Formats: sequence, C-alpha cells, structure tokens
Amino acid sequence: MSVTAAKGFTAAGVAAGIKDNGGPDLALVVNTGPKQAAAGVFTSNRVKAAPVLWSEQVLRGGRVSAVVLNSGGANACTGPLGFQGTHATAERAAEVLGHSAAEVAVCSTGLIGVRLPMDRLLPGIEKAAAELSAHGGDRAAVAIKTTDTVHKTAVAEGEGWVVGGMAKGAGMLAPGLATMLVVLTTDADVDAPGLDTALREATRTTFDRVDSDGCMSTNDTVLLLASGASGITPDAGEFAEAVRTVCDDLAQQLVRDAEGASKDIRIEVVNAASEDDAVEVGRSIARNNLLKCAVHGEDPNWGRVLSAIGTTSAAFEPDRLNVAINGVWVCRNGSVGEDRELVDMRYREVRITADLAAGDASAVIWTNDLTADYVHENSAYSS
Amino acid sequence: MSVTAAKGFTAAGVAAGIKDNGGPDLALVVNTGPKQAAAGVFTSNRVKAAPVLWSEQVLRGGRVSAVVLNSGGANACTGPLGFQGTHATAERAAEVLGHSAAEVAVCSTGLIGVRLPMDRLLPGIEKAAAELSAHGGDRAAVAIKTTDTVHKTAVAEGEGWVVGGMAKGAGMLAPGLATMLVVLTTDADVDAPGLDTALREATRTTFDRVDSDGCMSTNDTVLLLASGASGITPDAGEFAEAVRTVCDDLAQQLVRDAEGASKDIRIEVVNAASEDDAVEVGRSIARNNLLKCAVHGEDPNWGRVLSAIGTTSAAFEPDRLNVAINGVWVCRNGSVGEDRELVDMRYREVRITADLAAGDASAVIWTNDLTADYVHENSAYSS
Repeated sequence: MSVTAAKGFTAAGVAAGIKDNGGPDLALVVNTGPKQAAAGVFTSNRVKAAPVLWSEQVLRGGRVSAVVLNSGGANACTGPLGFQGTHATAERAAEVLGHSAAEVAVCSTGLIGVRLPMDRLLPGIEKAAAELSAHGGDRAAVAIKTTDTVHKTAVAEGEGWVVGGMAKGAGMLAPGLATMLVVLTTDADVDAPGLDTALREATRTTFDRVDSDGCMSTNDTVLLLASGASGITPDAGEFAEAVRTVCDDLAQQLVRDAEGASKDIRIEVVNAASEDDAVEVGRSIARNNLLKCAVHGEDPNWGRVLSAIGTTSAAFEPDRLNVAINGVWVCRNGSVGEDRELVDMRYREVRITADLAAGDASAVIWTNDLTADYVHENSAYSS
Repeated sequence: MSVTAAKGFTAAGVAAGIKDNGGPDLALVVNTGPKQAAAGVFTSNRVKAAPVLWSEQVLRGGRVSAVVLNSGGANACTGPLGFQGTHATAERAAEVLGHSAAEVAVCSTGLIGVRLPMDRLLPGIEKAAAELSAHGGDRAAVAIKTTDTVHKTAVAEGEGWVVGGMAKGAGMLAPGLATMLVVLTTDADVDAPGLDTALREATRTTFDRVDSDGCMSTNDTVLLLASGASGITPDAGEFAEAVRTVCDDLAQQLVRDAEGASKDIRIEVVNAASEDDAVEVGRSIARNNLLKCAVHGEDPNWGRVLSAIGTTSAAFEPDRLNVAINGVWVCRNGSVGEDRELVDMRYREVRITADLAAGDASAVIWTNDLTADYVHENSAYSS
C-alpha cells in the first residue's frame, strides 16, 4: 500500500527513460489534501546533491504538495546546471499539477557526477501525472529502486488514520542518513511542527542507526507528508510511535536488502554511560571491516569487537568489557569467556551484545557482513 | 640487514612451536651496547595487549637491552594470566641474557583472546639466545610474520652510523598505529629523549598515515634502540631524517603487502586549511569502502571521493573541490571535470589528489583497495 495507504494521496511510477535499461525510474507522490503539512530530514553529508539543496528550502515552508523522485542519476556534484535541472523538475510538476513549485520536493538517486537527461525526465513527469492513482503506491516504490532487489513499503494503522511509506536503499547506508530516499504519508491531521518532531525522533533511532557500509550519501532524504484527510488529530505519542514503527520497518528492509550482504548484524550496546557512548561504540563495531569479514565467515571473533570498542572515547574499563555473540558470552571481563565453539552463526541474523559495564544506557545499531559479493557489486557498478 | 645492520646488535629468529604450522615464530633482538637508549610508540587503542602494557612501562625508563617478539598469538584480552605470561617472557630473557627484566621489551602478534603456550615460548627464548648473531636480522624479521607474504626490512646510512629496522604487518593497518610490530636499531650515539623525538616525528608521517582497512590493533609497537657502538652522535635533523626514511620504507612495504590488496592507493590532500584537515580528509577517503571497491574495479568514481570528503569537518566549499585520479582532474569545482575515460587505472599504484582549495597544507595517506581476497582472507583466518 505504500504511500497511498493514507487517504488524501495519489502516486505513480513510470519509465521515463532515465535508466538505460528502460525500467521504471520516475515516481510522483501527490498530497490531495485537504492539508499539505510536511517535514523532512536530509543527509548530513556536506556535499549535498542538487535535489537535497532544493528540497531543504521547500521544507522550510512546512508544506509539500508533491514529491518527484527519480532513480537512474543522483544529480549530485553536477554544478549550477544540475541545480537548474532540479528547479525545472519542480516547475514542471507544479505546472502539470496546478501547484506552486515552492511546494514540490525533489529526490534523486543513482550515479554521482552525471547530469540527468532532462529531455526525458520532464516528459516523464507528465506521463506520471497522467497515471496518478490512489493505488499507485507500489508502482512508485518500484520506480525509485537502484540496486535494490525488492521494493520496500510499510504501513502502521492508528484509530481511523494510517501512516504509510516507501523506501529505497541498498548501499551507502550510513548514519545521518544512508543512501536512502523515503517518503512517508499520513492522513492524520498533524501540523508541520508536529510532523517534524515525530519524524526526527523516529529517524534518530531507526534510519540513523543503520550503518551498512559506513558510507554516507549525498542524496538522503526522508519526507513525511500529512493530508489531514482522516479528519483525526491523533495523540502526539501515538502518532510518533506509528511513524517510528514505519521507519523501523523500512530501515530493517534496507538492512535485509543491503548490497552483497549474507548476514544482518544487530549490535546492541548495553550498560553504557550514555546513549551517545552506546551509539559511538555500536558504530565503531559496525564499521570494523575485519569483524564484518569474520561474521561472513561465521567466525565468532570477539577480539575484533574489543579492538573496535578500544578505538572509541566511550567510558569503559578494558577489563570489565563483556561480549556475547548470538547469546554466548565469549568475552567476560575483557578476557576469554564461554567457549566460542558454542556460538551458532548459521542463520542470517547475527546478534552481538557489547556490555560496557559503565552505566545503564543502551542503543542498537544494524549493519551487514562484508562479502565478496559486496566487493563485486561495488567495483562493477558506478553509483 | 634489518635490525643487525647497526653495530652493537645481535638477533635471532627461531621456531618455538607457538604456531601450529611449525614455522619461525619467535625473534630476539639484543642491544650489546655500549649504550642501551630506547624510545617506543604504541597503539592508541584503549584495549591494549599485555605486551603493550608491559613494554610501555619498560620504555618509561628509556633503556631497552633486548626485545622478545612472537607471532602466533597476540596475548591480547587474556586477562591477568596473559600479563603474567608477558612478565615471565621478560624474566626468562633477562635470566638467559644476564640483563634486568625491566629492560626487556615484549611484542606479540596473532589471534586476540587466546593465551600463549608458555611451555613452548619460554624454551624458545633459550633457543633464540643460543642463535644470536650479528647476521640474525633477517631471520628475526621472518619470525614475526603472520599473514605477511614477505618479511620487511630497511636500512638508511649516515656518515659512520646506520639506522636499520624490521616490520611485520599485513592487516588491521590503521592509524595510531596499525597491526604492526617494528623494531628499529641504530649504532648512533643518541640518548632516549633524542630517540623519542626522532621516532615520534617519523611515525607521525609514515606508519600513522597508513590506513589499509581502518582497523586498529591492540598490539602495535614501534621501538627504536640505540647502541652508540659507532661512537658518533649525528646532527639531530640528519638522524631524524634517517629514522623517517627507514619508517617510510617499512610503511610502504606494509601497504604493498596488505591482505588481499590488488592496488596501493596514494591519497594526497592538498590546499587544506591545516595539516589536521588534510589528514582527516585523507583518512575519510581511505576508509570509504565504496571507493575502495571502485578502485579495485578500476573505476575512477570521483563521486565517492566527494561523498567521503563531505563527511568531514575540514574547511572547504563543496563547489570549489577538485579531484584528480592518476593525474586526470575528473572533478573540478565540485562538478564534472575532465573525461573519466582518460583515467588509466591498470597499474598497482593509484594516485588520488583531493584539492580542498582552502589553504596551503597537505598530507599523504596510503590505503589499499577492497577485494574479494581481503574478504576471503579475513573471513577464513581468525586474527
């Protein structure tokens, strides 16, 4: 159901000819109201793609009536002409839909440093507008795929209102955010500040804690659009929880579809002095290539976990650290614990628990193993 | 000639039975004087192996008369019993050689979290002591190899004095330092503070700028021992330059022998606002797995360089960044530059130049590509 699960939204996904292979590559999501409140979070990479620079401006107004998304090109590092292309994209959508360009967000994904074929993209917007439908959510989700093997959607239901969404992302998945484009929609009647609060809190503990390969994109965008079509204003906590649920679901789908991965690694850091410490340690473990290789080889190499923890500034004493892999405490008090032969790593999900013995804060970071397939996919594909 | 190129040193390398395969695994380097000045730098990992904790204490005295090094086990994360093992190692060497244990440094490398077989290591020290020779440098260098495919030695000559050294390291190579054990020796007559100054300056711009895989070891140790046997006290600048030359040579050998690598990548950051900025940007590029895969695939994917630069806090404007790959400026002013088809990446060395256009500082960081062989080697080998 994706972005059209909520009332007040239409969507479409079409093949505009941006991708060489002729596949779907342009999506349109339209908020038909009655309201057009919106919030967004964007990559913290300082090298930002043209559509990010544009959409950041649009979101300042707290109103988004439509989102144009394309795969087949990131429109990043494309200079002033690239920004003109994004502007023209918003203008064309506004013209076709009868909106203001200042309310049209734009998202792009694909190869960096190549200009988009505007002569195909702009007609594609018209084609998509002609196919807009209250059942178009899945087609929109398909059109934003790059190396994704599946399209990704999720829905959470409240009492009389829903939050739905779609996401793309399979590589360059790292905090703040990952190479992900996400559009969430709701028919709840929530104003822009309310959306912003719910969205920031949700992304902080979901998308921001997926760290597939430590690489941060120039294009990451997560948008939340509210039509108010249900006529219901939910309790703020309940709404935030629904948004978080959808974000968490989509984030998990990103992890499970990460390029070349054979394992999903859930790193839980417990008994940290602060949540920041827990996140720092989790990320350090998540980014340790040697550990990621060991997990790929189903080797419970806890020494690599300790050496990753040791590079952080978190509060801990080396001789009080404990590490469990799939529930077996292979490291106790910074030294050899239970027999590593007891660890069963045959399944796709691998759980690493790092106990810092320094407080009561915790955090979960998700990553993937490092595989020959990852190397192959990313040495053969220019993205 | 390795550590025995300088007068006043003997060395040996023997098979003590620490490694299962029966290969050489224990090295001994002895300073026969007349002086025993020494300096050392150690891993900045907060999880430090027992031999690092021990040797740090030894080096505080500024005197080292012997170094015992073993491969086949890191003696890291082995608790109080592991530390007792290191202590017993120094005691046994001191006993055999007639020195004080407080002047015997110990270095270990291999798997983390496994105790060393002291019943084989201690007799190995006696065996090595019996084989000490002024020509034993190469055998010592061979005995400290782990996944190294070649042993690594280097020598620089001054007027009447020399600096020589050996190194091991093939993975977990990252700043501050890498999984490397390095012993440098000189017959110059330099006191401990003079050695310390020369060594810190040399490692700062050599070993500390090798970042093969972003992973920092628990065991890194670089020692510089001076016998004074030449009777010559060189000019401080000249001596520092000789130490730097040997460190640079050995660091390059580490890069060229990095696990699974098919490319050596020289990342030069120029026109940075400060050297710290240049190093931060260089490291960020060096640790970008997607870029490392692209280099493996001989794909001049400069977008991945820009996205890595964008994650740093260095001073730069995105639209003033320039990037060259093997001399071709594929990115100019943050956008498309010369034709990427002009870039020839067939050779093992790949040069990436990142121009921040923000000042006049620069730095060079070395890394390797990310390959299926790296994944294979590190998922199959517990290290």
